[in-house]
Formats: sequence, C-alpha cells, structure tokens
Amino acid sequence: MTIDDLRNIGQELLSVIPRYRFAENARTGLRTGAAGDTTFPLDEAAENIIVSRIKSLGEPLSIVSEECGIEDEDSSSLRVIIDPIDGSKNAINGLPMFCTSIAVASGTTLDDVYMGYIVNLISGDEFWAVKGCGACYFNGNKTHTKTDDNIEIVLYESQRPSEELPRMNRLFSYTVRTRCLGATALNLAHVAAGSVSLFVTLSKSRSFDFAAGYLIVKEAGGICTDAEGRNISTIHTGLGKINTILASANAHIHARALDALINSHYR
Amino acid sequence: MTIDDLRNIGQELLSVIPRYRFAENARTGLRTGAAGDTTFPLDEAAENIIVSRIKSLGEPLSIVSEECGIEDEDSSSLRVIIDPIDGSKNAINGLPMFCTSIAVASGTTLDDVYMGYIVNLISGDEFWAVKGCGACYFNGNKTHTKTDDNIEIVLYESQRPSEELPRMNRLFSYTVRTRCLGATALNLAHVAAGSVSLFVTLSKSRSFDFAAGYLIVKEAGGICTDAEGRNISTIHTGLGKINTILASANAHIHARALDALINSHYR
Repeated sequence: MTIDDLRNIGQELLSVIPRYRFAENARTGLRTGAAGDTTFPLDEAAENIIVSRIKSLGEPLSIVSEECGIEDEDSSSLRVIIDPIDGSKNAINGLPMFCTSIAVASGTTLDDVYMGYIVNLISGDEFWAVKGCGACYFNGNKTHTKTDDNIEIVLYESQRPSEELPRMNRLFSYTVRTRCLGATALNLAHVAAGSVSLFVTLSKSRSFDFAAGYLIVKEAGGICTDAEGRNISTIHTGLGKINTILASANAHIHARALDALINSHYR
Repeated sequence: MTIDDLRNIGQELLSVIPRYRFAENARTGLRTGAAGDTTFPLDEAAENIIVSRIKSLGEPLSIVSEECGIEDEDSSSLRVIIDPIDGSKNAINGLPMFCTSIAVASGTTLDDVYMGYIVNLISGDEFWAVKGCGACYFNGNKTHTKTDDNIEIVLYESQRPSEELPRMNRLFSYTVRTRCLGATALNLAHVAAGSVSLFVTLSKSRSFDFAAGYLIVKEAGGICTDAEGRNISTIHTGLGKINTILASANAHIHARALDALINSHYR
C-alpha cells in the first residue's frame, strides 16, 4: 500500500462525500457505530468507499475504523486505522470543516504507524507523511512545523467545554486567538504544515482520530504527547477513548504549553 | 444593485482568491488598512475585485470597506459595506475558513441594510437575504434558524480569549461543543441557515464584519443584539470596533444565552 493508493481514495471521497452535507437525511442517525458515536449516512458512505478500496488492493490487513470497528485483527498483518469522517458533527450541521484520516501501521501501537494521510473533504487539502520522510507533504509540497516561539493561534478541541476551557485558560493567555474547528485530524495536520503552533485537547481521543496526524506532526518536526507531556507512542490503536493530546510545532512551544496546562489554577 | 450582481462578484472571487492562500507572499503585510488591521495580498486582491465590479454598475454609492476605508460618503446614495476577506488570519496561515461579506444599505445605520451577501471562499457556500424576504437563502435554498431549544454547538469569536472565555463559561456549560472558526460573518451565516443555535463575541466588532449577517439572521427568524441584549439597529455602519454581538436562532435561546452571559461569575 502506498501514499498514491490513499490519495486515490481521497480523490474518490472528494467526488462523492461533500454533497452528503445537503442530503435530506443528512442528520438522520442510522445506528451506533463500533466506537460509540452515531453513524450518519455520510460516515457510512465514506467508510464503504475506503474499506472497499483498501480491501481491493489484495494485501492481508486488519482494519480499525470508527463505524465498523475492528475487522480481521491479526498482529502479523498491516493495520489500517481509519476515521472515515472526522468532524461528522460539523458535516451534519452544514459546517464546512471535516476530513478523512487514514493511518497504516506495521503493528498494533501508535509507534508502528508508518504512513499517514489526511484529506479535508471541503477544501481538498491533503496532508501526508511516510515514516522517515522528515516532512508533512501539504498538497504535494514539503512543509515543516513552525520554528518560532510565537503562539499566534491556539487550536483546541473539547467535549466538555465548561470544564476543560478553564483548565486551558493560562495557555490561552499566551495568545490572541483560539480556533476550535471540530476535527482532531485536521488540527494535527495544520500544526504539521506550519499553519499554527499547537493543538491541545483535554478530552480523551480515539486513536483513529490522531494516528495519522501523530506521524505527520512528528515527521514535520513537531512534538506530540498527551496533555501532561507523557509519551503516547506505545498506546494500542483500538477504538477506545484513550488519551489527551498536546501537539506542538517545536520543543520550546511544547514546554511553554505544558507548563501552562500543568500549572493551571483550575486543575 | 441586485443579489445577482453580488453573486456574480462572489463567483469571480471564488475563481481567483482561494489560490492566494498558497502564494509565496501570502503572509507579507502590504500596509495597515483603513480599519487598522494589516492588509495582506489576498485582502487587497479581493477588495479590488469587489470595488471595481460594484463601481462598474454605475449607481451612485458610497463604499465602506476594511482596507480602503470610506469612499464618497454621501447619506443620500447607496452605502455598500464590505469585508473583502473575513478570516484573513486563517487565510494567511493556511486554515481554509474565510469569506467575503457585502451589505447594501439605503442609509448609514445598521437598520438601513436591505441586502446582505456572504460567500465562503473555500466551500463556495453562499448565504443571502433581502429585507422582507423572510429567509436566509443558503446556496439558493430558503432556510431558517433552528426552532428548538437545544444548544448543540456554541459558536464564538474572541480577540482576548483568556479574558473573555471565562465570561462565556456559564454559556459553555449549556453545550457539549464549541466552535471558533475565525470569521464573524460566517458565524452569523450559519446561525441564519440553521447550522447552529447561537453565535457570541464579547470582543467589539466592526460593522463590515456583521452588517450582512445581521440582516440575514433577522430575515431567517433569528435575533441579533449586543451581548447585553441591547438593540444595535441604530448603530452607524463605519470602520470602528463598535459592539459585541449575540445572535440566536430564536427568542428562547437568546434569553438563555443572555442570562448566562449577564450572570457569569467572571463579569
């Protein structure tokens, strides 16, 4: 499986999925997906495309995906970790910010991910990396994380804003702008591509949301740990909500952000 | 001047402006615009297109625009209030969320706006209303604000997050998701189109950011005041940062949100 295989899937998704935003049944939940969230028509359509295209490549593999769960788990084969639609809540409400995230791993831990691909299904922006490439490819161009110390924008996500935003307030005092886009993988992609200095979520995330972005951030020169600074490379890439995330453009920003989060008055 | 004239401008912008995101000089400030923010190449390009197209219509008019300021002010002519790029900070950093906002007024107050047009320059989504039409036209379809009481997502903007987010925290306790997209006009457009229940900013905004959205929200059934519930219809549509904004889908949500903001522990 190569990046071109994933990019071909991305192009097919771009030709089909955006129109689901305006379908009459866009907001009608079909069922509860394997990871516990409601599956909407656009989640199902995206997953069907991705899983069928990946299986058609004919390689032995196991699949970890938000809607269908874990298929053919076998630690000796490739493991493909998929979020068919990251940002479903945006998509079903008409907000044009959602993406697909696909990570390919040689084993069952985050550190085994060797290829990551994220595609914004509205703008068409693509972000990818292969282990060792030393960059985030952003629409085909090599990009890297920001090298300066300035925190112009803090990207965050939160599933419990009234509890978690106060705990991030010291970090917010370092900046004049926040952004909360509603799609974890895109946040990581934009840290990697040098758009922003850091991304944080104090809500526990699922590995299919961040497996691709984790690799892309690291290859682009960034740092990705949990929000207390702990290494997450050995986590198991399954369906559960397992860890918080802090992804930074460089070591100086990571240290400042950790200090702000750990010394928050609201912990 | 008709909505079709504004839509034609929108189509021209869509064909030209998105590629400025990736221009080599995208982040190079050209000068300080009339409203006090830095003018970037994409702001200038968008304003040039809009102003030249509007002038070519041959109607007597005055222009209020973020970069060039106020041209030919004359209270007896049409007043066109323009934000060439709302979300410049996103655009220059590569975040795909920015729009153009154009309002047309018969006088110098917000209440004189009789036509509003907003176009998302990445997704191509268009939102418009003409006074009395009783709807937000979203990509040509009549839409209205949400009628239910549920606050699924709170949209906000802030220019001083560490001061202002604590003052919104009681409001955040009513929801499980925030979004901060970085483009005031788009926030208002999505309240009008029924994507979300409310938008709030405690930072003072400029009328070119919200003049079109104010009309579109009201025509779609929503309510728009400042963040203390005061009527803003008589404000003068100039270049200054003049008022906070609270835009809600319906009266029940507006009352709940005002109560949460006014009774915040952090005021």
